[in-house]
Amino acid sequence: MSILVVGSVAFDTVETPFGRAERVLGGSASFFAVAASFFVPVNLVGVVGRDFGEKQLAAFAGRNIDLEGLERTEGLTFLWEGKYSYDLNSRETIRTDLNVFEFFKPRIPASYRSSDVVFLGNIDPVLQREVLEQVSKPRIVACDTMNFWISRKAEELRKTLAKVDVLLVNDAEARELSGEWNIVKAARAIRAMGPHTLVVKKGEHGVLMFSDEGSFAAPAFPLENVFDPTGAGDTFAGGFLGYLAGAAGPGDQELRRAIIMGSTLASFCVEAFSLDRLLTITRKEIDARFRQFLELTRFSE
Amino acid sequence: MSILVVGSVAFDTVETPFGRAERVLGGSASFFAVAASFFVPVNLVGVVGRDFGEKQLAAFAGRNIDLEGLERTEGLTFLWEGKYSYDLNSRETIRTDLNVFEFFKPRIPASYRSSDVVFLGNIDPVLQREVLEQVSKPRIVACDTMNFWISRKAEELRKTLAKVDVLLVNDAEARELSGEWNIVKAARAIRAMGPHTLVVKKGEHGVLMFSDEGSFAAPAFPLENVFDPTGAGDTFAGGFLGYLAGAAGPGDQELRRAIIMGSTLASFCVEAFSLDRLLTITRKEIDARFRQFLELTRFSE
Repeated sequence: MSILVVGSVAFDTVETPFGRAERVLGGSASFFAVAASFFVPVNLVGVVGRDFGEKQLAAFAGRNIDLEGLERTEGLTFLWEGKYSYDLNSRETIRTDLNVFEFFKPRIPASYRSSDVVFLGNIDPVLQREVLEQVSKPRIVACDTMNFWISRKAEELRKTLAKVDVLLVNDAEARELSGEWNIVKAARAIRAMGPHTLVVKKGEHGVLMFSDEGSFAAPAFPLENVFDPTGAGDTFAGGFLGYLAGAAGPGDQELRRAIIMGSTLASFCVEAFSLDRLLTITRKEIDARFRQFLELTRFSE
Repeated sequence: MSILVVGSVAFDTVETPFGRAERVLGGSASFFAVAASFFVPVNLVGVVGRDFGEKQLAAFAGRNIDLEGLERTEGLTFLWEGKYSYDLNSRETIRTDLNVFEFFKPRIPASYRSSDVVFLGNIDPVLQREVLEQVSKPRIVACDTMNFWISRKAEELRKTLAKVDVLLVNDAEARELSGEWNIVKAARAIRAMGPHTLVVKKGEHGVLMFSDEGSFAAPAFPLENVFDPTGAGDTFAGGFLGYLAGAAGPGDQELRRAIIMGSTLASFCVEAFSLDRLLTITRKEIDARFRQFLELTRFSE
């Protein structure tokens, strides 16, 4: 049982109404890997520059995260800088220096090729397919994407989606990808493109999942202190797929619990900058909050 | 077991991307009364003009709705005209002719004064208190309000809230009333003003309830065809309080089921203009959709 993630490992500079963090660890693969590693061993494929050192690597140490696939090349690590509005619901990107990530060509180490679950982070859909060509029969192929690829590489993205089991996007992306405003219609259109399961992330409004078994709705955990939303979506994906990778099978009940587990991990992520909170939580805290989700949503007939 | 609603009965002219309805039945008390009447007898207090005739009254006929408190005076009925954007999430008010509603002074008929549950629709908080002075010991006093009263009659609203058990508002109103952006903090501040239970309506994103027992989150029903959102909030309130009025007690389990029942009724409301869908649904359809909510949200540990 293992999970392969291919995505960005980055430096983030983030400003929220509550403070500022300079050049802290970020990137989709970082958040995903730490979240998923609570459940199964994680194989990470990404690229960093020479400025990425021991201090950053320490975040992954002592966890179930294999870094053989984390390439280090000449140049600087991907840097993202963003500033959140007062309500934390919108953010302005101040700087995106792709640096070594611009020329990222995922190479999957031999020991990673039989991973049970593969998560294709938000990269060029052509590269996402190249990853799939290097792995052998994963049980679940999941994928993220963004508006940039939806509008600029629509055809390539379609070819990738045809090979994907689970697509995770936010509501705006689901609408853009399908051309449908109504989210139920959008889900039907997207599922016809390939993914049998669509997970629509709505931030503070929770998650909707559409699958062969019907739909499932989960709220976000109502938190009193949301500090920094950066990485919440990738953390959700890590908790969701990590839990699924460790579960008996991807049946409806497992998918539902996986959505709640993803939401649980994401709710911790936003409590601090970077991966700070994820790196201190225990499995006991995770399980306690999972049970709080039950309490938050249960009702009887 | 009966419920008293005090609010507007109106003509609505509504334009959505899907069509236009001219001078159809609207008003908070109309939507509320029809929704609540599926559960308990409803006593309606409102005012209409001479232009409100048999055709409009027919909507209430054959239901558990008493109209002794529906005053008819010289003048025209309250008229609201609005236009929805393509996404149905925002609307522009084109016209608000208060007409006879401008001078509305709620008079509660003697036979209504012992109603078990009282719903104070969105009217001047001074009038809301005058209603409470005319009734005797209701089991539950619930109340709606809006940004207009929150900003213009803050002190009067505070005096009313001190006498209220359940407040139902949307998320923007909860934020404005409390001065807190974070909805958990907003809920704590509002509950300190009087209402032991706060219901925050988030439209297509569902409902959050905060009470002594903790919090409860319910999604909106994912509908493929949302036709006209007008009245959904009042319909929710009618289903919620109607169910509560008919339930054994306002315990946590009853409150949770009531939230789902309100969401169920609201999901029918938006399927057509005006009260058109509410007037054709059967109790069997309501119960079937309630069970679909269970299916939509359930997961196990």
